[in-house]
Amino acid sequence: MPNPTSKLDIAAGALDANTKAAKKAEARKKFEDVFDKIRDELIERFTSENMPQDAIEWYKRSLEYNVPGGKLNRGMSVVDSVEILKGRSLSDDEYFKAALLGWCIELLQAFFLVSDDMMDQSITRRSQPCWFRLENVGNIAINDSFMLEMAIYQLLKKHFRQESYYVDLLELFQETTYQTEMGQLVDLITAPEDHVDLGKFSLKKHNFIVRYKTSYYSFYLPVALAMHMCHVPASYTHSGKVVSPYKLALDILLPLGEYFQIQDDFLDYSGTPEQIGKVGTDIIDNKCSWCINVALSVATPEQRKVLDENYGQKDSQKEARVKALYEEINLRERYRKYEEDAYQRLG
Amino acid sequence: MPNPTSKLDIAAGALDANTKAAKKAEARKKFEDVFDKIRDELIERFTSENMPQDAIEWYKRSLEYNVPGGKLNRGMSVVDSVEILKGRSLSDDEYFKAALLGWCIELLQAFFLVSDDMMDQSITRRSQPCWFRLENVGNIAINDSFMLEMAIYQLLKKHFRQESYYVDLLELFQETTYQTEMGQLVDLITAPEDHVDLGKFSLKKHNFIVRYKTSYYSFYLPVALAMHMCHVPASYTHSGKVVSPYKLALDILLPLGEYFQIQDDFLDYSGTPEQIGKVGTDIIDNKCSWCINVALSVATPEQRKVLDENYGQKDSQKEARVKALYEEINLRERYRKYEEDAYQRLG
Repeated sequence: MPNPTSKLDIAAGALDANTKAAKKAEARKKFEDVFDKIRDELIERFTSENMPQDAIEWYKRSLEYNVPGGKLNRGMSVVDSVEILKGRSLSDDEYFKAALLGWCIELLQAFFLVSDDMMDQSITRRSQPCWFRLENVGNIAINDSFMLEMAIYQLLKKHFRQESYYVDLLELFQETTYQTEMGQLVDLITAPEDHVDLGKFSLKKHNFIVRYKTSYYSFYLPVALAMHMCHVPASYTHSGKVVSPYKLALDILLPLGEYFQIQDDFLDYSGTPEQIGKVGTDIIDNKCSWCINVALSVATPEQRKVLDENYGQKDSQKEARVKALYEEINLRERYRKYEEDAYQRLG
Repeated sequence: MPNPTSKLDIAAGALDANTKAAKKAEARKKFEDVFDKIRDELIERFTSENMPQDAIEWYKRSLEYNVPGGKLNRGMSVVDSVEILKGRSLSDDEYFKAALLGWCIELLQAFFLVSDDMMDQSITRRSQPCWFRLENVGNIAINDSFMLEMAIYQLLKKHFRQESYYVDLLELFQETTYQTEMGQLVDLITAPEDHVDLGKFSLKKHNFIVRYKTSYYSFYLPVALAMHMCHVPASYTHSGKVVSPYKLALDILLPLGEYFQIQDDFLDYSGTPEQIGKVGTDIIDNKCSWCINVALSVATPEQRKVLDENYGQKDSQKEARVKALYEEINLRERYRKYEEDAYQRLG
């Protein structure tokens, strides 16, 4: 039976969790309000150039459908990072600028998701039909994705042109976009959904895909943008040693991105629908996941044969065979070890 | 019977034409040689980042298949414009930089063409199958088109980062890309191949589409790039008046782009296959052409009914009915008048 103190503790904890959730909701609301302003700005320009009304409405709908509905972690972390770097809360103008940079990441993400969904022929995204699946949209979605990308540079020009770090922002977005596309290319040709060839997989390739396709834009980009906004220089000398802060950020954030992706890959296999909010499909979708790459790296010739014959096929019995093999090679234990090592390295 | 002088004239003319053709071929060869260097540079970076070999080869193939095979007018006109602005022939370094900017336009064009072909579900491009039609390519072509676009900024960063006009080049490419995408959006929703609604057409919309989808990147961009490379300022004062050279260039080049497109539209209807190297299909493809928009602007209610019932359908009898109506409204004479006016205005 719990003693009174621990009951109080639980009550306090619940209150604390409620406060935290309320604060998070409030922060999200504040961030979302900036989107409305950004959308109106983008639309205003089209109106001023006499773009036909149906095209203006089309673009407005594309922005509203594709940009704001995600978790917004990437975007909001720019604001958080600027606050941490400045060590104080932000003025209204500072908040707006940091949030605008955050929304530029969300625009980049929308550009990637709209086009990825077409390349993967996906059905739904964020609990609604993929944009290209809507009536009358179809392949026009390709051009719509381009226009989400270009909105970034439109916004940067309008709000940051006078800043000394303007060109750094442009280069950072261009570079990150290119890197993400490089990762997407390797992913697409390594693990096409309709042609299984496990000979193309390896932990090294997995590492390349995770780093280029996800980590640069999801982990490094928000922090690097915040650093530029806080005028962090490319390098400086400290106690006679040259320090490169952006290189340092990369060295911390890329392994963090890798850790999160590997956790994600492992949960796709081991997590219950209650835990992960979906049923994992990496095995039947021929995904170049951490799990299959670990299995390949330790498989005996017999086990390799089982994987070749059963991975990446739309057949739940074959999927079950792969899962059984994951148990045979103690994948759970291998993940536990990976996680332990990662904590050491990242902590 | 021709007299001896005119025979000599003809011979001299032929010789002159031969020399011109030879010079043009030589200029093209020199320009094409720069592409090899650019391609190698782009590939080198991927190698240095340990991108898997199959992905490197994929990108190389995409560059070679999609970038160099066109008329190269846009790219080569950067070189010509820089020569005109400098009033002398270029040093090796100047030539390389001007040609590199030219190839950046060709990369932008490749990005547009690869993606347009997917949106239009085209079959061939430049006498070869469209890139996305190749085996194993398919929807990966979407990402390939992105990587053609991003190569531009990679090259600009490497070769122009030290120049005072670097940020102007970045903004010019970004702005032009956005404008072209705006034009493409209006074109796609105004004239979808599978749904005819002539109520959406107008000469005003035609003008918007031509200007945004074609003129900015084909006519203004090459000249504006050359002007930046020659350090032409955004504005200066001359005899007490403020001159804006880029605005001036726009005012000359956008009407020129419109004139060329209208000529193109008219030739699609009136030109013989010998003249235009193809059979015109604008009527059956539901294109928002100058011809149909002129017809709509003068059509009686009866004629409008004929157009509604026959335009944009895969049926040669219906196409013939539209062509007959073009004759009824004296389209040839209207074009002759337009051309005469255009010569006045542009001359």
